[in-house]
Amino acid sequence: MASEFGKALRVSVFGQSHGRAIGVNIDGLPAGERIDLAELGRFIARRAPGASGRLATSRREPDEPVILSGLENGVTCGFPLCAIIENRDTRSADYAALAAVPRPGHADYTAHVRYGGQADMRGGGHFSGRLTAPLCIAGGIAIQILAARGIYVGAHLASVGGVEDARFPLEPTRELFSLVASRTPPVLDERAGEEMRAVIEQAGAERDSVGGTVECAVTGVPAGIGSPMFDGVENRLAAAIFGIPAVKGLEFGAGFAASALRGSQNNDPFVVTGGEIRTETNNCGGILGGITTGMPLVLRAAFKPTPSISKTQKSVNLNTMQPEPLEIRGRHDPCVALRAVPVMEAVTAVVILDMILEEKGYGNF
Amino acid sequence: MASEFGKALRVSVFGQSHGRAIGVNIDGLPAGERIDLAELGRFIARRAPGASGRLATSRREPDEPVILSGLENGVTCGFPLCAIIENRDTRSADYAALAAVPRPGHADYTAHVRYGGQADMRGGGHFSGRLTAPLCIAGGIAIQILAARGIYVGAHLASVGGVEDARFPLEPTRELFSLVASRTPPVLDERAGEEMRAVIEQAGAERDSVGGTVECAVTGVPAGIGSPMFDGVENRLAAAIFGIPAVKGLEFGAGFAASALRGSQNNDPFVVTGGEIRTETNNCGGILGGITTGMPLVLRAAFKPTPSISKTQKSVNLNTMQPEPLEIRGRHDPCVALRAVPVMEAVTAVVILDMILEEKGYGNF
Amino acid sequence: MASEFGKALRVSVFGQSHGRAIGVNIDGLPAGERIDLAELGRFIARRAPGASGRLATSRREPDEPVILSGLENGVTCGFPLCAIIENRDTRSADYAALAAVPRPGHADYTAHVRYGGQADMRGGGHFSGRLTAPLCIAGGIAIQILAARGIYVGAHLASVGGVEDARFPLEPTRELFSLVASRTPPVLDERAGEEMRAVIEQAGAERDSVGGTVECAVTGVPAGIGSPMFDGVENRLAAAIFGIPAVKGLEFGAGFAASALRGSQNNDPFVVTGGEIRTETNNCGGILGGITTGMPLVLRAAFKPTPSISKTQKSVNLNTMQPEPLEIRGRHDPCVALRAVPVMEAVTAVVILDMILEEKGYGNF
Amino acid sequence: MASEFGKALRVSVFGQSHGRAIGVNIDGLPAGERIDLAELGRFIARRAPGASGRLATSRREPDEPVILSGLENGVTCGFPLCAIIENRDTRSADYAALAAVPRPGHADYTAHVRYGGQADMRGGGHFSGRLTAPLCIAGGIAIQILAARGIYVGAHLASVGGVEDARFPLEPTRELFSLVASRTPPVLDERAGEEMRAVIEQAGAERDSVGGTVECAVTGVPAGIGSPMFDGVENRLAAAIFGIPAVKGLEFGAGFAASALRGSQNNDPFVVTGGEIRTETNNCGGILGGITTGMPLVLRAAFKPTPSISKTQKSVNLNTMQPEPLEIRGRHDPCVALRAVPVMEAVTAVVILDMILEEKGYGNF
Repeated sequence: MASEFGKALRVSVFGQSHGRAIGVNIDGLPAGERIDLAELGRFIARRAPGASGRLATSRREPDEPVILSGLENGVTCGFPLCAIIENRDTRSADYAALAAVPRPGHADYTAHVRYGGQADMRGGGHFSGRLTAPLCIAGGIAIQILAARGIYVGAHLASVGGVEDARFPLEPTRELFSLVASRTPPVLDERAGEEMRAVIEQAGAERDSVGGTVECAVTGVPAGIGSPMFDGVENRLAAAIFGIPAVKGLEFGAGFAASALRGSQNNDPFVVTGGEIRTETNNCGGILGGITTGMPLVLRAAFKPTPSISKTQKSVNLNTMQPEPLEIRGRHDPCVALRAVPVMEAVTAVVILDMILEEKGYGNF
Repeated sequence: MASEFGKALRVSVFGQSHGRAIGVNIDGLPAGERIDLAELGRFIARRAPGASGRLATSRREPDEPVILSGLENGVTCGFPLCAIIENRDTRSADYAALAAVPRPGHADYTAHVRYGGQADMRGGGHFSGRLTAPLCIAGGIAIQILAARGIYVGAHLASVGGVEDARFPLEPTRELFSLVASRTPPVLDERAGEEMRAVIEQAGAERDSVGGTVECAVTGVPAGIGSPMFDGVENRLAAAIFGIPAVKGLEFGAGFAASALRGSQNNDPFVVTGGEIRTETNNCGGILGGITTGMPLVLRAAFKPTPSISKTQKSVNLNTMQPEPLEIRGRHDPCVALRAVPVMEAVTAVVILDMILEEKGYGNF
Repeated sequence: MASEFGKALRVSVFGQSHGRAIGVNIDGLPAGERIDLAELGRFIARRAPGASGRLATSRREPDEPVILSGLENGVTCGFPLCAIIENRDTRSADYAALAAVPRPGHADYTAHVRYGGQADMRGGGHFSGRLTAPLCIAGGIAIQILAARGIYVGAHLASVGGVEDARFPLEPTRELFSLVASRTPPVLDERAGEEMRAVIEQAGAERDSVGGTVECAVTGVPAGIGSPMFDGVENRLAAAIFGIPAVKGLEFGAGFAASALRGSQNNDPFVVTGGEIRTETNNCGGILGGITTGMPLVLRAAFKPTPSISKTQKSVNLNTMQPEPLEIRGRHDPCVALRAVPVMEAVTAVVILDMILEEKGYGNF
Repeated sequence: MASEFGKALRVSVFGQSHGRAIGVNIDGLPAGERIDLAELGRFIARRAPGASGRLATSRREPDEPVILSGLENGVTCGFPLCAIIENRDTRSADYAALAAVPRPGHADYTAHVRYGGQADMRGGGHFSGRLTAPLCIAGGIAIQILAARGIYVGAHLASVGGVEDARFPLEPTRELFSLVASRTPPVLDERAGEEMRAVIEQAGAERDSVGGTVECAVTGVPAGIGSPMFDGVENRLAAAIFGIPAVKGLEFGAGFAASALRGSQNNDPFVVTGGEIRTETNNCGGILGGITTGMPLVLRAAFKPTPSISKTQKSVNLNTMQPEPLEIRGRHDPCVALRAVPVMEAVTAVVILDMILEEKGYGNF
């Protein structure tokens, strides 16, 4: 049950990079939700390589999902929704030589041990970033169901190689989310975006790659969602977000910065605004004791630099157990964080929809 | 199922801060494991307030666990192991006045919404840091079972209020773990420890608190543990670690720092050492594609400053919906990260034991 | 995670027959439910040996539960409710000789293999019927929460050794449930009860035991609870009911008898009664496609005869691998089905409450 | 998460009867298992309508599975295996009129309530018996993996309309399983089979249907598989078997018959045969305390008569809430038990493989 997450809403991802198709099965979607397939297509397209122009890989992945079940006349029917994307344009020859020499930073070696050398690791196999396309199908659907209830999800590229974007304001609007999503790269501060662009292009030009962070926010989530200890919003988001390839860190609200603060600085004072309990600041990221406060949820994930780089690297031949330098060919994104922005939105939306489904129950949703 | 985690090994925590007892039920422990109760007691004592001297709360919590089941003559019998700690020395009057005015940074308000005002929130209720005591029972047992197989777990206070300890070396030894655990505060660099001590005492003197980070490492974990996407070591650790009160961030290996690196800097080159595949660096924290590399696991959690501070804070009376300043009395730790060091070890050990049990199967453990 | 069940409501049972205490942890109970402890005590007492007079074992098990958490002033507080029963009056010497010679029909041999000889099997260990006492605590609480919503659970001894009681009427009343529960044995037809009594006493007199069946019904469950395929009411009840020791069969509605019927006989015609959709018959046991119809749920479980009999039996010495006749001493129920009647109610109530909690959500319950 | 089951091996079924495709995703298959696709095809064909000649529906369902992922060159690669079957030859017009008038014995009414009238119930929707085809894909794969380890699964039509086949012998051979599978209907006693055939044809001729039972056995399962209370072999099989449409009862070993026996009759004496512990009889169905004894597993499921019958039935129009007689057109099996024989094998095999994977661990399988 490795490639599944969720409780009331259960998302299972399948497929290898170079297999026949990749896809997702979503069990537990409420019935009667109208899904705008054109809007879903636009959401998925934000993740596609072409969307980022020269900043991303030159591979073409049309990513046209085919919905096999669960949707009739554009409306969810309550049964599992399975959608697939057929694989084309795969150049397996690029990877053939890699089998015996694991790529540093990739799952080649660990999958070799885990699966006794039987895993189909061409193109990264089931570990490939390509598997985030089905996640975007699930997330794009969740985003529409949430939006119909006034809950909005947005994300931006918060940093690249140390160049930082601005932070989301205390209460980001839906319009801001749309504006950011329309930019390449998707940032709040366009000057920072220009600088990031330069950093990414420079890394690519040097046959290298660069890391980044993505900040995601969810507005409109009512207070009182989540449960204590191991079933809180942080636990559930973390369990899912670390499933996005290349994520190596995650923080909520002030996050790691809170570890350098005093309590008097970090505590968010309660106030009444418009007859509702709010907090003046949101260092807790909208979550106290694992339960939502009613303020926006704010989370940031750290993405490592793309491990696939064209520079020569040190590795070992698993057959001979001798050192063997490695030069990776093929087409790769110089910065995975860039295309991960909609993926963060997608996974976050699925988790929040799942948790709201539990709170409301399938009989009351 | 909020207060449980684990798959092959299932840990359920129960109890409120001011109830009759707190405790833990552990289902899935392998049979035939000898548990040294004196050693377990010493482990649990590391978390107790007294262990940190003046740096922690003056409450006395004897934390003597009573094992109700699952252990016969000091050996696990394969059945669920339930252990409880009776509550004493609780001064509920300290909290009585707080019911209507939620403490900033605490779960008072979110629990009020979640449970419709019915939760027993005296002393923090089920959200209290006191619930980490049963986690230490589970973890102390897991640590012994792992140690019998050459797998060791250690942690240190990595920073307090921005004052940083050194990082664990590439391959920390069991002796280093023991040495660090014997120190107050538990640090690698004793000069950093002195500075942290001053920061904590200063915060306490100013009726304030301060945040910190804890770094944890596990050595001896074989390569090949974990599964792709949502059932990797990072997912499982994250889902559990965010259950420790006050954790707001988590990272593996280079973590957030990796987001500022180039791929050529962050990728860990494979080498052969002593006939085994190792990596020259360990920026991945011993995990690639969710699966262990055989190198030490390294994770760091960010703890927010203790939300309970004696300084006057802004809040709201939930009955009148009017602003009402709040002054928290009672005894509180000025830095929760300090006592969280063994808790990080405990939770990490339980997760790793759980994942190894899955890999080995109960018939082969 | 062997000794747990449930999703929104999670019940974990712990303890061995001859350990320090047995108990149950219930995670997910809604907050604000008033529990009448005297009524709970009366429910648990129905399972106690004394309740069945001469028909049951002469062991004394006071079964006084101590609630450690989750209940404040008789009201659930939303946090896990843990309750324990201390073990007394255990005569371990009775079982000492059995270790090497497994009792036919018991888990001695299978536990020996499963736990490598390390399980504490005195008195049946964790497999003992005594573990149904904590199930009755959980069930007694669930029954009260359901009753507050007009949902009632009742059961009767449906047969013993082939002697059959009447069946529940199409729509049993709460009063009928109470009446049956007040009888010894708990039956609908008292003449059948007299005959069963004779069958049980005869079996006991002959140092033997006898099997039986228990029929359970739940009224007031609204239509629309449950989900298709593997998460229907039958699946969930079955997964839990087979956890009651000695259950070897389970059927819903007409059950096995339906396999001998024509569709025209077995299909339940829909009618409108009092403005509501009902069915004229209830051969489906209130469940179609795994989902409740709004008619009473009806299920029957088959209990094998108590495996502990005083007659000499054939067995094998596991050390010598030679045949060794076995004579079981100690005090045993000649018919486990008798005391299983409240246990069926308990487990059924927990499952139905769990499923209604999912349908309603914790925010709307 | 309604349409999933399993722990180490997780099977998710998707699709509606009249949607684009139905299918199954299997997560957790061990890597390196060679799957004979021709043999898989033959297994699936046993469930197909044509296989039963005149005894089954005249619908044509080619049921050719397309494997999208998880299998490379006929060998499992450790990643999720997703397989689909495209839907053709569906005559939706047959069902159009049924929307407002629920068919007795079907999930029409309960799904209407559960999904607020939004479910796509054409052809039974996701509740259709057609969804057993993907279960047979999963089961056919599990059967091959088990057979490679000397574990064999077989089933036969144990009764139809009260006409009983013989029971499996104490230790059925693989050859017997093959022989039975080759017969139409699949029975042990061919004379009983002739009689069943007559009963089925007679029911069909009378525009009616008839129920039946299926007995399934698994040989070669080692002792010691399974866990106590709620994670035993019976619990796990029951949770899955009740997911096969039309199952209303399930029993293990002597099952309901044990409820009429004395302990001295029902207990299975331990003996040593060929140096191994065996039992002289197998009334426990190979399971004691939820754990396998090493004897064959034996289970029997009761299938209700096909609810779709052409005879006029009483029902209600959900729009007008007035009685409305119903005549179901379309093509239906007069006895679902007949085609359920391979489905029982399939589901049983998946559960047993899942439980053995847990026992062995993925690192040792």
